Amino acid sequence: MSRGASTERRCQTAVVATVSLTLDEIDDLARAVLVANGCDDENAAALARTLTAAERDGTVSHGLYRLPGCVASLRSGKVDGRARPAEEPLTPAAIRVDGNRGFASLTLEDGVPRLAAAASELGVAVLLIRNSFHFSALWPEAEAIAAEGLVGLACTVHTPMVAPFGASEAFFSTNPLAFAWPRPGREPYVFDMATAAMARGEIGVAARDGQEIPLGVGLDAGGSPTTDAAAVHDGGVILPFGGYKGSAIATMIELLAAGLVGDWFSYEAAEVDNGDGGPAIGGQFLLALSPEVLAGPGWADHSEAFLTRLGSLDGVRVPGQRRFANRRSTAPRQVDAELVASLRTMC
Amino acid sequence: MSRGASTERRCQTAVVATVSLTLDEIDDLARAVLVANGCDDENAAALARTLTAAERDGTVSHGLYRLPGCVASLRSGKVDGRARPAEEPLTPAAIRVDGNRGFASLTLEDGVPRLAAAASELGVAVLLIRNSFHFSALWPEAEAIAAEGLVGLACTVHTPMVAPFGASEAFFSTNPLAFAWPRPGREPYVFDMATAAMARGEIGVAARDGQEIPLGVGLDAGGSPTTDAAAVHDGGVILPFGGYKGSAIATMIELLAAGLVGDWFSYEAAEVDNGDGGPAIGGQFLLALSPEVLAGPGWADHSEAFLTRLGSLDGVRVPGQRRFANRRSTAPRQVDAELVASLRTMC
Repeated sequence: MSRGASTERRCQTAVVATVSLTLDEIDDLARAVLVANGCDDENAAALARTLTAAERDGTVSHGLYRLPGCVASLRSGKVDGRARPAEEPLTPAAIRVDGNRGFASLTLEDGVPRLAAAASELGVAVLLIRNSFHFSALWPEAEAIAAEGLVGLACTVHTPMVAPFGASEAFFSTNPLAFAWPRPGREPYVFDMATAAMARGEIGVAARDGQEIPLGVGLDAGGSPTTDAAAVHDGGVILPFGGYKGSAIATMIELLAAGLVGDWFSYEAAEVDNGDGGPAIGGQFLLALSPEVLAGPGWADHSEAFLTRLGSLDGVRVPGQRRFANRRSTAPRQVDAELVASLRTMC
Repeated sequence: MSRGASTERRCQTAVVATVSLTLDEIDDLARAVLVANGCDDENAAALARTLTAAERDGTVSHGLYRLPGCVASLRSGKVDGRARPAEEPLTPAAIRVDGNRGFASLTLEDGVPRLAAAASELGVAVLLIRNSFHFSALWPEAEAIAAEGLVGLACTVHTPMVAPFGASEAFFSTNPLAFAWPRPGREPYVFDMATAAMARGEIGVAARDGQEIPLGVGLDAGGSPTTDAAAVHDGGVILPFGGYKGSAIATMIELLAAGLVGDWFSYEAAEVDNGDGGPAIGGQFLLALSPEVLAGPGWADHSEAFLTRLGSLDGVRVPGQRRFANRRSTAPRQVDAELVASLRTMC
């Protein structure tokens, strides 16, 4: 995953003033901001765990950077900071959870264990999340499924910012797809990718820091290719990764996370959004599969041999390794000083 | 999907001598060749249906073009032309079918209705196919699932010919992924893509016809980028579509179709293959989801509005449309004359 990693590294090493915060300090700051703006303790704690995990893993575009948007959505009344998810079992293999207009974090903490229990018994199960606000990375849910010894797949949509292949009009959101394969005794094989050529968050960080983005990532407001991150981020449109194939996968994600879940497609979510700058309401599709039930004993050794061989090929980088290396560090994290100062005024 | 379509069109309009055959004549020819080379009537009929459907839809790289390889595998004894699939139910939501070293066609005709019944009841189900020889496109199984009013997803692996992103050594097969979304009263939304930058079959047809392929599709035997289809096809290596993201999806497909099914990874399939030029033994992963159970009533109108809007965007081509247009024609098909002459000697 070297291209994504180097983009991320560029974002992180940009010359911005930072302050040093421990993970506990990051978690405390996030919780304080959220409680001061209308979250109850349970929602604030769940959300803070998600944001802190992103800072811990070095995925700054999904960490505290997202918190001002969350605050905006609490203040505008779009998100209910005291929401409780409501589970609606559909079949023994399918669970639907209504987020009741809350942030997705609590909804996921409620739903994923139920999904895991169903998949562990039946070999396969789905979790359909409706009516909730997802604002973070997707690897947390894929990894949470893998932590139960299961294969996890997750996808979600938000609002249009990616043009389908051939078009120059935003229609898809960045439509991320995350996948995790459990590796007993070690971190899972996991990827979390936008089906956009670059994640919206990464383009936002590049725009903020005045960094260029590769040609092919997006079009400006006039529909022309550009390397100016700000021109794509503000008024332009992102392109799908991988041309028509990436565009087809983005379509599949709309159909799974909205069509199959029974929640808003990206273009619908934009129509009902109040424009407060926070996350959009929508659905999320999660699938869990049990290799123990489906492949049977021996599955771990079998897949481990494959993954080891893949990782040993010259030039190959297995995704997620940079995040896991960051995760092992207990050192304080360097966080954008301006962002931290701004968040402190929100408490 | 214009890039894929135009590649295909280039292949079809290459100046090769053709003969005109009706679909019935194509089916009869395929069945006669297969029966003469060791298939029983049931296997020959199932296989001929698959090959004829490809010729009917104009996907010539998955039609009669594959038949000489099938014959080679029957003659070498690698494939059992009289195999009967054996179903092994795992749970109410998971069905495993052992192909008993037969071609995949009969195995799929046996398994897909059982998969559809389980998904229609539980909302989700998986079909795991082991120990069978898949040699054709994947849209037939995805479409067969969609024909039952279900969402279908299918993937499979064969033998290494694609280098993971960053590497120059073949490790993945072309690892195709097919997806179909049902559209009541009309053809499904369906795509069937190699996670290779171009399908092996398409590169083979381009090499046969002396056509160039786009830069970025593959490396030659020395590891250098080339536009020479033959240099990639014979001794070179194909690249994944979409860089590191396509490579991650190819990894996921290995893990699903081999790791989760409990069958050979691509590199293992190559090790056990006898090199007769026919298809490789391996597994296939199929997932079916019921929008009626999961999204509930109204799902069809909801997704139809999305797909209609997507299809109406300037410059967008919805995948599968060329195949469906071909399918509506009852006219004879133009088939490579040399191939037909060669097949007739095999009866």
